[in-house]
Amino acid sequence: MTQPEPQSMSESAAPAAVIEAELREALLDVQRQLHQEKPCSVALIIVGMPAAGRSEVVNKLLEWLDPKHVMVHAREPDCLAQLHPPLWRYWNTLPARGEMAIYFLGWYDDYLRSQLLTAKQARVRAPRMVERIGQLETMLLADGVRILKLYLQVDRKQQRRRLADLLASKATRWRVTDEDRWLARHYNRVRRVMKECVRLTHSESSPWHVIDAADSQQRVVAAGALLLEQMQAGLQRRSVTAQRYDWPTESPSLPVKSAPDLPPLSDEAYHKELERLQGRLALLVRKRRFAKRAAVFAFEGMDASGKGGAIRRITAALDARQYDVVPVSAPTPEELAHPYLWRFWRRIPPRGHIAIFDRSWYGRVLVERVRDLTPEADWQRAYAEIREFELQLAEAGTVVQKFWLAVGKDEQLTRLQQRANDPLKGYKVDPEDWANRRFYDAYQLAAADMIERTHTPCAPWIVVEADDKRHARLEVLRAVVAAIERGLEGKIVVAGEQATEPG
Amino acid sequence: MTQPEPQSMSESAAPAAVIEAELREALLDVQRQLHQEKPCSVALIIVGMPAAGRSEVVNKLLEWLDPKHVMVHAREPDCLAQLHPPLWRYWNTLPARGEMAIYFLGWYDDYLRSQLLTAKQARVRAPRMVERIGQLETMLLADGVRILKLYLQVDRKQQRRRLADLLASKATRWRVTDEDRWLARHYNRVRRVMKECVRLTHSESSPWHVIDAADSQQRVVAAGALLLEQMQAGLQRRSVTAQRYDWPTESPSLPVKSAPDLPPLSDEAYHKELERLQGRLALLVRKRRFAKRAAVFAFEGMDASGKGGAIRRITAALDARQYDVVPVSAPTPEELAHPYLWRFWRRIPPRGHIAIFDRSWYGRVLVERVRDLTPEADWQRAYAEIREFELQLAEAGTVVQKFWLAVGKDEQLTRLQQRANDPLKGYKVDPEDWANRRFYDAYQLAAADMIERTHTPCAPWIVVEADDKRHARLEVLRAVVAAIERGLEGKIVVAGEQATEPG
Repeated sequence: MTQPEPQSMSESAAPAAVIEAELREALLDVQRQLHQEKPCSVALIIVGMPAAGRSEVVNKLLEWLDPKHVMVHAREPDCLAQLHPPLWRYWNTLPARGEMAIYFLGWYDDYLRSQLLTAKQARVRAPRMVERIGQLETMLLADGVRILKLYLQVDRKQQRRRLADLLASKATRWRVTDEDRWLARHYNRVRRVMKECVRLTHSESSPWHVIDAADSQQRVVAAGALLLEQMQAGLQRRSVTAQRYDWPTESPSLPVKSAPDLPPLSDEAYHKELERLQGRLALLVRKRRFAKRAAVFAFEGMDASGKGGAIRRITAALDARQYDVVPVSAPTPEELAHPYLWRFWRRIPPRGHIAIFDRSWYGRVLVERVRDLTPEADWQRAYAEIREFELQLAEAGTVVQKFWLAVGKDEQLTRLQQRANDPLKGYKVDPEDWANRRFYDAYQLAAADMIERTHTPCAPWIVVEADDKRHARLEVLRAVVAAIERGLEGKIVVAGEQATEPG
Repeated sequence: MTQPEPQSMSESAAPAAVIEAELREALLDVQRQLHQEKPCSVALIIVGMPAAGRSEVVNKLLEWLDPKHVMVHAREPDCLAQLHPPLWRYWNTLPARGEMAIYFLGWYDDYLRSQLLTAKQARVRAPRMVERIGQLETMLLADGVRILKLYLQVDRKQQRRRLADLLASKATRWRVTDEDRWLARHYNRVRRVMKECVRLTHSESSPWHVIDAADSQQRVVAAGALLLEQMQAGLQRRSVTAQRYDWPTESPSLPVKSAPDLPPLSDEAYHKELERLQGRLALLVRKRRFAKRAAVFAFEGMDASGKGGAIRRITAALDARQYDVVPVSAPTPEELAHPYLWRFWRRIPPRGHIAIFDRSWYGRVLVERVRDLTPEADWQRAYAEIREFELQLAEAGTVVQKFWLAVGKDEQLTRLQQRANDPLKGYKVDPEDWANRRFYDAYQLAAADMIERTHTPCAPWIVVEADDKRHARLEVLRAVVAAIERGLEGKIVVAGEQATEPG
């Protein structure tokens, strides 16, 4: 695949003041429309050599735009970000539709830092970091985030001259930081790394724009013009990349883990095994090594398949300080205004903690697919997006284990009827549940596809036969214990390797 | 003032199973109503001796209620919380109207921990901690948060027996943590501290409920009954505590800091002084000592008083990684569903950082008062609430400086007309601005009251004569520099002392 060349924006014809005034007016106008119609959000990433004037460009843009709808993100990762996967902090700051975010370096920060500053052996992760960036941008674009990537370029001579000018006067010397000095001293290396970064992450759908930063007025006009172009494009109805997927008509039946016809457990046998497994789990998560790990357990299954009961048997073994249960239902308006994984990224656990999702991001390929809530092109791409999401969790040392609780159609009916007749559980049954039952077979098909396409070494599925609640709960606990044991032994597939689907 | 005795809830008459079933049904019902009507939110705080069964009670309540609308908060302060004032993390987790939050210890955590574990000299802060708790609860109650405080009580014998039972079997031994053992060994001390805490923070409007935790069924029924009571009370229209305040009819005129009739500055003189002050500011915030401080600058003033321009002259001297500008406009629906200070607490800076608010929490006593958007009782109590808020920032080492940019009525008219005719600034003028002009005098009165009542040593106001933009900007910069200098010298009024209003 040949990649297009990064576009260069150095020349400009009409008198600068006229262009600038027109540009400002157009920017304000289109920003107001974007905010009213909310077709998309805008993420501007700005990268460049020291003294190329990144701050000046951003400050000017803020002066031109209505700053109420622009957030600037320039912070280095804080202590909490360091307890999460690298991209977590960007997910947390993604703008809602109609809003704009400006990032200094943004999700290129880790890559550039590692290439510039860290030892050679750390750089072997570079290909994976580049892949991660690519996956993120592809997903954001598909989810209605317009991404504009600007690279401000100055040559060595200009940079030196500008730094010397600043340093010459006591009144401006403070503008030059120690980091600037270091980067300027290593001009060639910095330039090589940045060029390489631009080359590797430039694509037709997410291009870099190189701006000649020699002239302080021209560079901001160039940046403003590109921003205007992005925003105008965003106002057009986004064309769904109607990438047809070869959709199988017949799916394999669900692989069921536990033997379907085990004899029922006695009270005593059940409670004894339950206590044993809970004790084991409690000890595991208190191990000092777990402080460097985290765990995510996701529960999916038809209504009344016993997700809540299984989850309570896990939490009974945990210290309330260590876990969160995250019940997932239909997204709120705020959540709908963001890429769909946004609300899940916000709830993933920091190191040493556990998050249990009662339903999860798989709603995208279950209910949203079956009930036709999301266009096919969007849920089709979700399989790859979810694999990438879970891989990033695993790379950060998080144990990921997913459960499909398989309840038979008859057993489900019995349970729903019991619930509906029980004043204490009636609230759990709403008309939607009965409606969903009519889609029982469609759900089975969707679940089979989901498992086939997202069952990965670093985030495996377990299908639990759930008609017998006791066996199901013990099965879940055993899998939770086993997953954490694997995690503590470091047997997670991590960094640098793409997870492969099981054969 | 005599305080009522904490209520004891040990006895119960009807057969337990019947009570429990009725209770569960009623809880679900009232929870659903609360979620639909959203008259208030509920915060449940649970405190108790080890082995009193706090986790069991919370788990049962979660099983009884619809867990989708309950969040449990049990974490110890994370690294980010440690960079903020102590109550920040509770503000971040406050439930929206219609939702519920359960806190293990909650905002009593710091107090109890300091009393139990830290050295004697650290305990001198106890009175201030108790006051902080009281202020918080008063404010939350007034803002539509129902607070239920439960204290689970076991006597020493019961506690010992229960711990011994748990420890006897390998299957249950894991339930007893090292902390439990330590607390159990120091039964008398723990009990004394907890009793003292309950005594000090018990009031008619925010009472503690002591639950005899000897019986595992009775304690959860007691907790559930109290919760039901709170939720039912919440469903009633909350009675505004119509505490009339002695409102002055005549207000003092605004104290104006800079001399009103300075000669205009030449370009050269202005830029020279600007560079000097910006350089000084840049050096100050890069000092290593500033990493243990933070700064909050709040800008208020009529439309077109020059807030944005003054703010840009500050940020020009700062590294983008170190500051946030927070533009404040009308609250969103999500913000309206929380206590009004919630949205500001979420944006206060961690240590080493600066937040600049373009309009602020003072909207409560300015626009909301003048335009009659908030009942008088609510904005009247805001003066004290804001003093407390700012005191907490100062106690955590944050420099707080507030600016009122005073623009004359004629000058304001000139500027608004200029803006309206300028296509690049027209967006800044909306019909509201013209409407607000009709309230010019009311704003002046509100501003004078605001300054008189919230000008404190730890968070002073400066009134800047803003008809001359250049003088105003320099004046602001000088005050910013002075405030940070004071902060670095440790001359902030902190912990343990109630800020007094200037005479």
